[in-house]
Amino acid sequence: MKSFADRLIDAIQEKKSRVVVGLDPRLESLPEALQRGVHRDIEKAGKALLDFNAALIDIVKPHAVAVKPQIAFYEKLGPYGVAAYFATCKHAKDNGLLVIGDVKRGDVPDTAKAYADAHFISFPCDAITVNPFFGTDGMQPFLDGAKKHGAGIFVLVKTSNPKSGEIQDLPVNGRPLYMTLADKVAEWGKDLAGASGYSSVGAVVGATHPTQAAEIRKALPKAFFLVPGYGAQGATAADLKPSFNADGLGAVVNSSRGVIYAWEKEGYKGMAWEKAVEKAVLDMKADINGALGVA
Amino acid sequence: MKSFADRLIDAIQEKKSRVVVGLDPRLESLPEALQRGVHRDIEKAGKALLDFNAALIDIVKPHAVAVKPQIAFYEKLGPYGVAAYFATCKHAKDNGLLVIGDVKRGDVPDTAKAYADAHFISFPCDAITVNPFFGTDGMQPFLDGAKKHGAGIFVLVKTSNPKSGEIQDLPVNGRPLYMTLADKVAEWGKDLAGASGYSSVGAVVGATHPTQAAEIRKALPKAFFLVPGYGAQGATAADLKPSFNADGLGAVVNSSRGVIYAWEKEGYKGMAWEKAVEKAVLDMKADINGALGVA
Repeated sequence: MKSFADRLIDAIQEKKSRVVVGLDPRLESLPEALQRGVHRDIEKAGKALLDFNAALIDIVKPHAVAVKPQIAFYEKLGPYGVAAYFATCKHAKDNGLLVIGDVKRGDVPDTAKAYADAHFISFPCDAITVNPFFGTDGMQPFLDGAKKHGAGIFVLVKTSNPKSGEIQDLPVNGRPLYMTLADKVAEWGKDLAGASGYSSVGAVVGATHPTQAAEIRKALPKAFFLVPGYGAQGATAADLKPSFNADGLGAVVNSSRGVIYAWEKEGYKGMAWEKAVEKAVLDMKADINGALGVA
Repeated sequence: MKSFADRLIDAIQEKKSRVVVGLDPRLESLPEALQRGVHRDIEKAGKALLDFNAALIDIVKPHAVAVKPQIAFYEKLGPYGVAAYFATCKHAKDNGLLVIGDVKRGDVPDTAKAYADAHFISFPCDAITVNPFFGTDGMQPFLDGAKKHGAGIFVLVKTSNPKSGEIQDLPVNGRPLYMTLADKVAEWGKDLAGASGYSSVGAVVGATHPTQAAEIRKALPKAFFLVPGYGAQGATAADLKPSFNADGLGAVVNSSRGVIYAWEKEGYKGMAWEKAVEKAVLDMKADINGALGVA
């Protein structure tokens, strides 16, 4: 079984892309044609999210290496929303996209095992995001699950939100906490290195913190970064550079709103929504590759 | 609207109990009568979890102040499991129990807002557990949601697992990280004090760490602790004392396996499962009240 990191590299090389599209649908922002009745009927609402995602997947699949559904936007609709999340993951996989379940789970060992079974088996994800707050015993079931299923983990190290430093930058033995977390990620990832040398245990590192990304990159030369914060959250392609290695690998970049609601952006307004999405994903791919100087 | 903390105190005083029952059903541990077919049919499996929980709720409702379904054990079954989680929350509320959704969510602000809507509205919880890793901006939507809905939050401060110290005890400015988190909980809870003086922003503090609990209690005199780790995880009633205030308030204690699978324990074997569960919840209530010297 090929490791997640190696499958991710295959996709990057095949599609010449480092783009991940965040599937974070909001009822109030759906294209007009999908809006009818969704605010009165929760079952219809779940179905509308799925229809939107299926259309997005068709458009982005030649240009994105993965999709990253954020489960919060589905849980918001209750069980029907979670059913739409499940169907979205499945549809993306059936269409040859890697699926990164943005679930940020983390818990005591017994419970973490249930979460690992949930998100590597019941919800068919290729990788998930995990919160490291519980330490190694809370992480172990996710590591075991990733190894068993050829799946991946992205551990929260330095998140993209403005106040992330309040906890994540706290001084621990003369370094910010996120550096201790980076060391843990290196340790947790040792046993999950693929043929490429890259580990299937990666890190979430916000593009909004390029200086910190460079520091974390040094501590984690063989981990993949999942990089949020590009576009709508304010980071530019230049901010992404420190997250990558010289081989043009080592990171994939997520955009959610900037792609899936592209028709609301300056320069894309007035386009059919499908065309705007396609242009946004192509523009993002070119912007990143341009900054990295790769084809 | 009465605050969550005040509603919790009402329940404690009315039932003379500080017991929370963790509804963490596992298919392989269901009573025999509920096992038929559940391993072959995921829809039946979800239904079996719900039937088990409904029976548990009937048994424990006079003796427990709240139930705490751990959503991981439901997510493990995919969308059908999450539907069972929803129905469990609703059934418990309809039966007059407070519902603490053990979801340990935490994310960047926009996403945290979606989670708060999910777990205070779509899944009808009175309180939820939240992970503080993102800092104040990630916490704000949960605080706003709690205020708006008269709901509560239990923030992870010191968890019950053996390796919790690996991250949570890291030295920050001469104190363990959990003390910085305790200070944050005090700050976050200021605006959510009820008529009782207790805040609806509480803390998760494992019973397996009584020394640390005493330290956190001092920093958080008016926060409720949600205390896991009693029973199956090894903590005794004596270990619980530092989590309480002198008024006999300030904490509620969770047991999951020790109650809901009581018929597997020494001293309960051979009893009908319903009787074993009832005896276990009564024994736990008396054990805690005895250690605190309250009626």
